[in-house]
Amino acid sequence: MFESAEIGHAVDDATYRKQVPALRQALLDAQYDLREKAAFPVIILINGIEGAGKGETVKLLNEWMDPRLIEVRTFDRPSDEELAHPTPWRYWRKLPAKGRMGVFFGNWYSQMIQNRVHGRIKDAVLDQAINDAERLEQMLCDEGALIFKFWFHLSKKQMKKRLKALKDDPLHRWRLSPLDWQQSKTYDRFVRFGERVLRRTSRDYAPWHVIEGVDANYRSLAVGRILLDGLRAALEHPAHPVHQAMAPLGDSIDKLNLLDSLDLSRSLGKDEYPQRLIEEQARLATLLRDKRMRRHALVAAFEGNDAAGKGGAIRRVAAALDPRQYHIVPIAAPSEDERAQPYLWRFWRRIPARGQFTVFDRSWYGRVLVERVEGLCSQSDWMRAYGEINDFEEQLVDAGVIVVKFWLAIDAKTQLQRFKARENTPFKRYKITDDDWRNREKWPLYREAVGDMVDRTSTEIAPWTLVEANDKHWARVKVLRTLNDALEAALKRDKG
Amino acid sequence: MFESAEIGHAVDDATYRKQVPALRQALLDAQYDLREKAAFPVIILINGIEGAGKGETVKLLNEWMDPRLIEVRTFDRPSDEELAHPTPWRYWRKLPAKGRMGVFFGNWYSQMIQNRVHGRIKDAVLDQAINDAERLEQMLCDEGALIFKFWFHLSKKQMKKRLKALKDDPLHRWRLSPLDWQQSKTYDRFVRFGERVLRRTSRDYAPWHVIEGVDANYRSLAVGRILLDGLRAALEHPAHPVHQAMAPLGDSIDKLNLLDSLDLSRSLGKDEYPQRLIEEQARLATLLRDKRMRRHALVAAFEGNDAAGKGGAIRRVAAALDPRQYHIVPIAAPSEDERAQPYLWRFWRRIPARGQFTVFDRSWYGRVLVERVEGLCSQSDWMRAYGEINDFEEQLVDAGVIVVKFWLAIDAKTQLQRFKARENTPFKRYKITDDDWRNREKWPLYREAVGDMVDRTSTEIAPWTLVEANDKHWARVKVLRTLNDALEAALKRDKG
Repeated sequence: MFESAEIGHAVDDATYRKQVPALRQALLDAQYDLREKAAFPVIILINGIEGAGKGETVKLLNEWMDPRLIEVRTFDRPSDEELAHPTPWRYWRKLPAKGRMGVFFGNWYSQMIQNRVHGRIKDAVLDQAINDAERLEQMLCDEGALIFKFWFHLSKKQMKKRLKALKDDPLHRWRLSPLDWQQSKTYDRFVRFGERVLRRTSRDYAPWHVIEGVDANYRSLAVGRILLDGLRAALEHPAHPVHQAMAPLGDSIDKLNLLDSLDLSRSLGKDEYPQRLIEEQARLATLLRDKRMRRHALVAAFEGNDAAGKGGAIRRVAAALDPRQYHIVPIAAPSEDERAQPYLWRFWRRIPARGQFTVFDRSWYGRVLVERVEGLCSQSDWMRAYGEINDFEEQLVDAGVIVVKFWLAIDAKTQLQRFKARENTPFKRYKITDDDWRNREKWPLYREAVGDMVDRTSTEIAPWTLVEANDKHWARVKVLRTLNDALEAALKRDKG
Repeated sequence: MFESAEIGHAVDDATYRKQVPALRQALLDAQYDLREKAAFPVIILINGIEGAGKGETVKLLNEWMDPRLIEVRTFDRPSDEELAHPTPWRYWRKLPAKGRMGVFFGNWYSQMIQNRVHGRIKDAVLDQAINDAERLEQMLCDEGALIFKFWFHLSKKQMKKRLKALKDDPLHRWRLSPLDWQQSKTYDRFVRFGERVLRRTSRDYAPWHVIEGVDANYRSLAVGRILLDGLRAALEHPAHPVHQAMAPLGDSIDKLNLLDSLDLSRSLGKDEYPQRLIEEQARLATLLRDKRMRRHALVAAFEGNDAAGKGGAIRRVAAALDPRQYHIVPIAAPSEDERAQPYLWRFWRRIPARGQFTVFDRSWYGRVLVERVEGLCSQSDWMRAYGEINDFEEQLVDAGVIVVKFWLAIDAKTQLQRFKARENTPFKRYKITDDDWRNREKWPLYREAVGDMVDRTSTEIAPWTLVEANDKHWARVKVLRTLNDALEAALKRDKG
């Protein structure tokens, strides 16, 4: 969920200085337009990691925009009066009116996450709080409100660095929050429960925007741009209810994509490969024969660029196993029966029973990849699919299914070489079609779709593994090792 | 929530025999139209009280409709295969395809309610199950499914009678379910948790229909009619997503309305009234001075027909109290500030602090009464208001607020007399306007709106009290007594 916010997004000062004046002007214009039309209120929720620039961003918004039309609301400690009323009262009384903007700092999400991190509440109560937040936001949106939810993120390493800098600076020391962020465990728990909250409350009417907080220039431009796009869209279509931002997914401010962070030069020498392969295959066979597997099932989903080597990797996985124990399910265009059912039906029916292992050669992610890029479903269909898929995988994991997901990534040059090789090799020619060449033209669209997919569906319970696949040997061993590690971790948890 | 399903709905045999043939033909036509268009699947969920005719209704549907296009799915005991898969798998594999109908008997709702009644799960886990059901249904509807949810209801007395009849009948004894329905406690718990489930899962895309189960004729016609209306609406507007049944609220099959069940002749003699009034007033003053009130607040909402005597009743309540302890909030058309906020904002801001008492002279129910009847808001606005209001009141109650709601009911004749008296009494003339005469013409619409309101928002945590108000004395004493009883019950719960 936070993958794209740990890849070092940055905007240099010159670019920043060049872009800011126009952005500020556009934001002011949108703000006045909002006041004029007074069609809806705007609620901006600020959450995330300590030190990731939450406060600075709020300060900046106040500078950039007309402060008479934007109010910052903090909800740290409830007042006596607030304590004498039902909890939601404090939020209701500070709602911005139509035509105005409210920045909610320390909002309902901060409370529930802090309570869970401190162990003051359990998962079931966190889920109740999540559900209440969803109902509140749904109601606000039904009543016309436009809600932006920002999560400012830092990797653990980056956070430690920022905190140290703050601590050494007497002017900023007071900022440190009551959560003991110095503890590595606090960060882990905060990210873990934060992810649960984001996963469950990222809805089409009020999606989360995760912002990498390291570079102030990037952070500020990203927030400004998201606000501007969202405001403009809502002002142009002041329909009731305002459904925000069916679009602002997509390329980032600095054009940096998650896939760029992969080192595709990784490879495994010919000497090393056979030995490593056979080791991992043996490990897989042993793990799947473990008695504890009776309480589990294993699902592996393979996605990747055309010609990235999915088939080859899957064959190396299968080679290790007893054919009675696994199924390989190739996913192509849906059959007539499948088209007569909800989208996820054809995957549900293939979910393995306990003790079994199913490999999906392409998967339920088709909706947010090929169907999105080719326009085979509506935008609202693929937008809501992220949440539906997260729910689906959560149901699997809750039932003991181990879910492992691979994206096999190659670069465009490697793909071209492989396409040509296929055309020139008689027994491989069936593998290359006009479709493949057409897909290749959509490379940038797939790149965007993959980034969004990983950001929205890589979860603690079912993470994505990006596999550097320019070198097939490296890719195959990494796939097997990842499967084995996931299995081992799940079986180990059983003991505890 | 079950008020309208305990008033003795019935249809005589002659009427039934006259109506059934046309209804059956229309249902068959709709079914064939559904198959032809194959635009969406239909899912019918059957739930409710034991002995209320669930099984008979399913049997009847099979007789009335084309059995090749309707499948009954029971989910009593999971099979070995089902146990080896994640729980949702058993529902997914039995989903009807587009163009077909599936009757789900013993579905996800039965499981969660039975688990809660048996004490196998706690409230928080029930809420998680409710939330999962909502997500599943939302997804199915987004994918085009049409979902009908029927709750068959019996009052406790009726249930006992039915169970006895079943028990005495050797042919039907096998039907008795594992829940021990003979116990009065089982019924109470089932209804209590059932109400919680219905309250939280009655959404515009998949609302619950509560059916009184005593009379087989009524039950069958009601279910048939709801199915027919919903099917027709969805077939005419096969838009994606299919949002069912924004209409089928309204007059019942037998025209019997909840308000008809009131005995408006109830009265209190002139001798008795002053004494009873003063007793209840003294009781109220004492209760509100109780130390335990510091942890509570009291909210009373007064609604009723024009000239039903709301003002007089409120004055009798206030007369007992220290003016520093209560506020009376008259609700008229919203101010400019209030129109710039979500609907519930103006009520939230008037919610009393702990230890305080607020009387709302008209209330947040305006949206489902005057705004619905006069068309001051859209149908989808008032339809979703029921759920929002339930959430609102639940938040109040969770925070210790005691919520008491009154509908003061008079008949049309009494209203006419009072209107005329007002016109003829100089100091009362300000109380009667053209609006009042216009509202009077909408009597049947208000009658329908009141019935729906009580059915959808009378909850265990914040029940409606219908007050027979033809006699003002009776009404005033009943209002005071109800307030006192509610206060006493809440303070007593504190001890436990």
